[in-house]
Amino acid sequence: MEKRINVPEAQQASPFVNASVGTEAAECDLATSKNVKSMGFVLVHAGAGYHSESKAKEYKHVCKRACQKAVEKLKSGALAVEAVTAALVELEDSPFTNAGMGSNLNLSGEIECDASIMDGKSLHFGAVGALSGIKNPVLVANRLLSEAQKGKLSAGRIPPCFLVGRGAYYWARDHGIPYCLPEKMATSCPSGATVQYISKFSLSAFKRNKRKMELAEKVETEFIQTKKRRQSSENENDSGSLDTVGAIVVDHEGNVAAAVSSGGLAMKHAGRVGQAAHYGCGCWAENAGNLNTYSTAVSTSGCGEHLVRTMLARECSAAMQYEDAHHALLETMQNKFIGSPFLSSEDCVLGGVIVLRSCRCVAEESSPDVQALLVEFLWSHTTESMCIGYMSARDGKAKTHISRLPPGAVAGQSLAIEGGVCRLGSLSR
Amino acid sequence: MEKRINVPEAQQASPFVNASVGTEAAECDLATSKNVKSMGFVLVHAGAGYHSESKAKEYKHVCKRACQKAVEKLKSGALAVEAVTAALVELEDSPFTNAGMGSNLNLSGEIECDASIMDGKSLHFGAVGALSGIKNPVLVANRLLSEAQKGKLSAGRIPPCFLVGRGAYYWARDHGIPYCLPEKMATSCPSGATVQYISKFSLSAFKRNKRKMELAEKVETEFIQTKKRRQSSENENDSGSLDTVGAIVVDHEGNVAAAVSSGGLAMKHAGRVGQAAHYGCGCWAENAGNLNTYSTAVSTSGCGEHLVRTMLARECSAAMQYEDAHHALLETMQNKFIGSPFLSSEDCVLGGVIVLRSCRCVAEESSPDVQALLVEFLWSHTTESMCIGYMSARDGKAKTHISRLPPGAVAGQSLAIEGGVCRLGSLSR
Repeated sequence: MEKRINVPEAQQASPFVNASVGTEAAECDLATSKNVKSMGFVLVHAGAGYHSESKAKEYKHVCKRACQKAVEKLKSGALAVEAVTAALVELEDSPFTNAGMGSNLNLSGEIECDASIMDGKSLHFGAVGALSGIKNPVLVANRLLSEAQKGKLSAGRIPPCFLVGRGAYYWARDHGIPYCLPEKMATSCPSGATVQYISKFSLSAFKRNKRKMELAEKVETEFIQTKKRRQSSENENDSGSLDTVGAIVVDHEGNVAAAVSSGGLAMKHAGRVGQAAHYGCGCWAENAGNLNTYSTAVSTSGCGEHLVRTMLARECSAAMQYEDAHHALLETMQNKFIGSPFLSSEDCVLGGVIVLRSCRCVAEESSPDVQALLVEFLWSHTTESMCIGYMSARDGKAKTHISRLPPGAVAGQSLAIEGGVCRLGSLSR
Repeated sequence: MEKRINVPEAQQASPFVNASVGTEAAECDLATSKNVKSMGFVLVHAGAGYHSESKAKEYKHVCKRACQKAVEKLKSGALAVEAVTAALVELEDSPFTNAGMGSNLNLSGEIECDASIMDGKSLHFGAVGALSGIKNPVLVANRLLSEAQKGKLSAGRIPPCFLVGRGAYYWARDHGIPYCLPEKMATSCPSGATVQYISKFSLSAFKRNKRKMELAEKVETEFIQTKKRRQSSENENDSGSLDTVGAIVVDHEGNVAAAVSSGGLAMKHAGRVGQAAHYGCGCWAENAGNLNTYSTAVSTSGCGEHLVRTMLARECSAAMQYEDAHHALLETMQNKFIGSPFLSSEDCVLGGVIVLRSCRCVAEESSPDVQALLVEFLWSHTTESMCIGYMSARDGKAKTHISRLPPGAVAGQSLAIEGGVCRLGSLSR
């Protein structure tokens, strides 16, 4: 089936600097500063899915807090990996997002989380999949990354970059990461713990979805069911449940990092691992190098299987090496996601990305030796909405935005794309 | 640290058709046949690692049997996915390979397997990670692939492409795939089952490795250990334990498929997932299409973390679109594996690939309407050796070969590359 790809004409033609986000939001031109500790930039997302107007304030608020946490780290001199982790912890701790606390429940009524992180400087990667019993999955991914950076284990064993299930849980526990017994995850934490991992939202969504599923299975006769499985149903995708979270950061040295965390699809089978734990699919970060002009960082959200099979994070990162970032991302979302040959049997392709690229430039015309960092950042989604926030280390507070598809556009077949640019003052060299 | 990349001069310069494997082995030029059921080709590997001379016969024998199983399927009219699965089952069932029965034991003395499969026609993918209690992990990956091809589940749920751990085990059991209780996996199967999952080889290797590890940890003081973790040790890599298995197939319609299966690194942490379950890293298959001249299929073996971080399967597949397949694979192994910026901190990069590409061509000069299939196939490895086998549906028996690094070459820094070409007679169109 041929898919329609609807992009507002104004967006299709617009060069990056005229991207459709308001000038006020898009421009955060910073004065040159001698204090490298006030350098850095963060862009976060609270998922591509559907963000109701009634909860818009909450989504924006968590994005704001996540940006602030990252910026606090950047201001204290932390590198990108530490800052991106801080943002993720805040996003995971919100009961409104589908990550950490508040994650979707699987078919068995349990929480199983995926998360990953990538360091653009070392190009190391850490990931966990189908992890229960850990409050902040991103902390395990982060620790896997930092342990791998230390080199080989005893007797020459190669440290793991990806752990799943029970094994991941025990590894996390052995490395001092806060846990509660996986058996308790589905109800509550053991006494002494202060966090209820299952939010009232995810529990009521689970009950609602379970009823919906049972009803669907009852109504669908064998024949109808078989037929339906080969079709799509317009109302089937409860895109509200896709809201994975993520963040991308550039630090005062110009290093980039990216992270993503997800409770996965609602009513998924136990053990299902989505894009948030998949290398190249959930996040990507790569410092500028011999072959790359720009440092790039990407974090994705949406339907895991679609994001895995298109390796969307890595594709977007590669596209960011082209001259016009806005155009390159638009083309990637159109040709390598909505129109991807890997998803030709899907008529509804659901996902979103946040992307940044940065390069060094001259900070002041009067002082050509002083370098600054030019950060171009974008978000794009085929889901009904995507909630994002961004902030530089010089900003007093984060800017947040719920991006929505243009009126009349069809989720899964159309896209929205917006962005901005930020110039960061003098850098450490 | 700068790595030496040693490639024999003769190999570096040689065009594909003069690849260093003997002409006898490389050429399987088939006469045109009107019987499409005798079309198809399979290339298998019993791992990149170290294959001792004493077990060479066994390794070759299992490769031979795996080829025969695939060819039996091809002759019966089966498509590539079914044939590649049949080859993998045979490879998994051997106690000599590190997959299925005979898999390496993890730190806890358990077997946890990874496997994946990709269909070049539909571009669907199925994978399992850290799976215990299932005799043939590839059967679960295959079933995930075929279930996903049927479309959505009840209530519009998207079928999973990747399952891990206990969830994967229960899914497999619910889909009628032979199992034994995971708890029994580490000792023996329940009464009635005929297979001992742990071979005597893997059990003795486990005991040996455990002693080695305990000794290493005892001897290494805190200081020495920290120092050592940042260095490599020449004798540390017990490359004998890397021998993941895999297969790639082209069928009578010209479709390609690829699969891979692994018990993972010896003494890995429970829950560790390697390249065999990673999309784009363990296997890749992509039929020719709008953008691709050739259908390509790849299966990898070696150190999972190295193969994941370089996405070697997908990189090799992409390289196969270049005119000179031999040169393209050589460059990929040199620049995107041994010399990859993603592995710049590693001085010993261990892996191997089998690769094929195919395109339609005129079968007979006298009948330009009759199409044939030209299959070019290659293998390359940086490990000390790699055992491969190949066979066309017209061959009476498979050809097998243990490829070894040239004398003086250093494993992890040098590579071997060989291949051949096969012309298959008239095809169904």
